[in-house]
Amino acid sequence: MTLLDRIRIVLVATSHPGNIGSAARAMLTMGLARMTLVSPRRFPDPEAVALASGASSILERAVVVATLDEALAGCVLTVGLSARPREFAGRVLSARDAAGEIVGHATHGEVALVFGSEMSGLSNAELARCHVAATIPSNPEYGSLNLAAAVQVACYELRVATVGGDVWRAPRFAPATADEVEALYAHGTRTLTALRFLDPRMPRRLLPRLRRMFGRAGLEKEEVNILRGILARIDERIRR
Amino acid sequence: MTLLDRIRIVLVATSHPGNIGSAARAMLTMGLARMTLVSPRRFPDPEAVALASGASSILERAVVVATLDEALAGCVLTVGLSARPREFAGRVLSARDAAGEIVGHATHGEVALVFGSEMSGLSNAELARCHVAATIPSNPEYGSLNLAAAVQVACYELRVATVGGDVWRAPRFAPATADEVEALYAHGTRTLTALRFLDPRMPRRLLPRLRRMFGRAGLEKEEVNILRGILARIDERIRR
Repeated sequence: MTLLDRIRIVLVATSHPGNIGSAARAMLTMGLARMTLVSPRRFPDPEAVALASGASSILERAVVVATLDEALAGCVLTVGLSARPREFAGRVLSARDAAGEIVGHATHGEVALVFGSEMSGLSNAELARCHVAATIPSNPEYGSLNLAAAVQVACYELRVATVGGDVWRAPRFAPATADEVEALYAHGTRTLTALRFLDPRMPRRLLPRLRRMFGRAGLEKEEVNILRGILARIDERIRR
Repeated sequence: MTLLDRIRIVLVATSHPGNIGSAARAMLTMGLARMTLVSPRRFPDPEAVALASGASSILERAVVVATLDEALAGCVLTVGLSARPREFAGRVLSARDAAGEIVGHATHGEVALVFGSEMSGLSNAELARCHVAATIPSNPEYGSLNLAAAVQVACYELRVATVGGDVWRAPRFAPATADEVEALYAHGTRTLTALRFLDPRMPRRLLPRLRRMFGRAGLEKEEVNILRGILARIDERIRR
């Protein structure tokens, strides 16, 4: 049981079963599993299963109810997604801030995130049943996210708010020590001087620039060895 | 002209034109308009227009190229989306952190955000052309966002990073473009071969290691010039 299991995604009066399937897929990619459908036009439907891809388990467990009030029963927080909550009397939050509140409330009980129909979104009356309105920032000239896209973005924010944005990271290799790095700079200075690329009486900004670049990279032991190997090879060749 | 106009969304080897259309729609909802297609299987195609909904202007202006290198030419930052960048040598960021870097770099020049094919995503070789890998946090047991959903989430983060005014400190110096960095690697390979430090028939892990190191640093234009100056000087000396 995670916090995400306390969050129900409520779809109101969805017209196309394919959109229900796509929404289920979007939910599962972000680890949400509880879908409630308020008087869908067609459900269950093979098109929903087809578009759910591997997420049909969510459709099988979906709860179908006749009214929005039934869908929201027992919730300690209800949030309605709306592109333009002009008439809404309560607080309007960005999807990100709303996700933070939802996850905060989920520690106390059930929470609902509500999406309207494909054509018109939530009506004013439906949105008025919600404690908070949430808006996904979008292009003011073309704000028409489709239903599954809106579910995807909202569930993504819920996942980041719960689990955090941690991502897989490459294994670290052993970092070089300060003295190894200094020895590399000393070697580099000698070789660049021998190459007459650097004039030690007039070094200008060359060495600080190189230090800055390698400093930003954060050199590893093996990289220092490779670079010193290259320097040694140059030394050999120019000595001939 | 906004920062979002400096960002090209690159789709590599897309199989289904419908997904290109859905991606265009996702882009436009977030205010992005520049799409580059690398050898799409079918394009232009009426299915793409159908799924783009009102966003077909993006398809009309889409640039179609044959190779990923052409798509990335001139970019000061290239970011590849990947669900599991296991083999990737450079930095792996969350989509949110990557959006911050992209917007920061866009103040200096063109930036590319690259998406792989529907079936397999970006190959290791394709991802290796990118400076940074970005990952959308997702359900470890079902991470299969479809292409348009991934584009939607990534473009949403770009919009929030731009319009939301998130603070990210722009790099102080002008970053090098992808083609400048590639030319540096090509020059370095020639010089290391001439030095007999590198055997092109037995390159082992040398070049990937160097790419990884410089990738981590994020090279600036002037640094590339310095490094190429050093290489040119070595070339001169060993030719004598």
